[in-house]
Amino acid sequence: MKIERGNMLYEGKAKIVYKTNHEDKVIIYFKDDATAFNGLKKSTVHDKGIMNNEITAIIFNYLETQGVSTHLISKISDREQVCKILNIFKIEVIIRNVITGNMSKRLGIKDGTVPDETIYEMCYKNDEYQDPLINEDHALALKLATKQELSHIKELALNINALLQKLLDPLDILLVDLKLEFGKDSNQKIYLADEISPDTCRFWDKKTMKKLDKDRFRLNLGGVEDAYSEILKRLRTI
Amino acid sequence: MKIERGNMLYEGKAKIVYKTNHEDKVIIYFKDDATAFNGLKKSTVHDKGIMNNEITAIIFNYLETQGVSTHLISKISDREQVCKILNIFKIEVIIRNVITGNMSKRLGIKDGTVPDETIYEMCYKNDEYQDPLINEDHALALKLATKQELSHIKELALNINALLQKLLDPLDILLVDLKLEFGKDSNQKIYLADEISPDTCRFWDKKTMKKLDKDRFRLNLGGVEDAYSEILKRLRTI
Repeated sequence: MKIERGNMLYEGKAKIVYKTNHEDKVIIYFKDDATAFNGLKKSTVHDKGIMNNEITAIIFNYLETQGVSTHLISKISDREQVCKILNIFKIEVIIRNVITGNMSKRLGIKDGTVPDETIYEMCYKNDEYQDPLINEDHALALKLATKQELSHIKELALNINALLQKLLDPLDILLVDLKLEFGKDSNQKIYLADEISPDTCRFWDKKTMKKLDKDRFRLNLGGVEDAYSEILKRLRTI
Repeated sequence: MKIERGNMLYEGKAKIVYKTNHEDKVIIYFKDDATAFNGLKKSTVHDKGIMNNEITAIIFNYLETQGVSTHLISKISDREQVCKILNIFKIEVIIRNVITGNMSKRLGIKDGTVPDETIYEMCYKNDEYQDPLINEDHALALKLATKQELSHIKELALNINALLQKLLDPLDILLVDLKLEFGKDSNQKIYLADEISPDTCRFWDKKTMKKLDKDRFRLNLGGVEDAYSEILKRLRTI
């Protein structure tokens, strides 16, 4: 049965999720809207949705070849993907290979510091409370996941980080940090969800340390479109 | 050699630490100063230092009988204790048996919720950054302790919480949450440090749920001295 877009299920800051005529599938539509600082800063970035759709598809397809289960079924248009319908954990996983941004400011650690070990963080995905940092005990108290699910998510996330570094390093892209989201299907199997793009990762050019990600928008550095398109161009070479 | 108070080493919000004529010992002096909200609210509570000195001494002595190593050597006056000199970890450990205060507000969990499992938190003890919440990876990146020390501190803290609940339950005191600090001596042995008092714990009367702790000061509930003195009175009966 050919897939057809149905009613909107949910509109997020950068994407819209639609029902389809398949009960186990959704269509995710990538918008050009850009927000930062919990929605305080808003704008649009020309063709961002098109670029992030393709970047995410390239990365998720790569991860699938490396044994990672993702929600992506297929990219069906410039701005649309068909994805598995999942019960999304209300957890934002953040992995930091280099300390910058919020963590640097919050803890007074010099921007650009490379920690001895990768840093794993969880935030409670809740706009009203501004996605606060949580630890595992908080996640359990909030009933966001079981202990087993939390440790499985952590294992998956650290593996994805390692695989991405392997993918990006030859493209001269430094994976500074990334945000991941996970969901589970009706059989409780956990999949990588959401997107992996310059909206959700910090990418620095390995040679020049130039920021090639949403920080160009957050920090008014200019050249936002060019940065996203540079990441896409390099990913297309794989 | 009789112990004598030397120069001030450090003045904190509620205590002053003095050198002594013994190089491995300090004298800790308990003040009446009370602060809340990272120092934004300041006042004094009559005889608080005297009460917290005695409350801490009773509790630390009890913990020692239960096999917990503490920095307390002896209470030598109304406001003074002789303690082991330690290298204090820049970590505030918080244990929550009931969710209230900051955690309730920050995560939108109903005040008074009892979680299925005890909640363990660490904050980076740093006034400039307002003692931010951290996870284990942050503690390692900040080099606040080694991985082994962090897991030892957690084990000690959870044990102390269980022992305190056993002590306080027959006194009709509900141990809602508590803040602990630890330090190590020159042999790297870890000791419980700081104090355990209504300044650093939330104590609720088990029958009436009346707050018998610093929240009376924080929240302008009145009866601050009476609450501290009630806790002391009950502890003196053990």
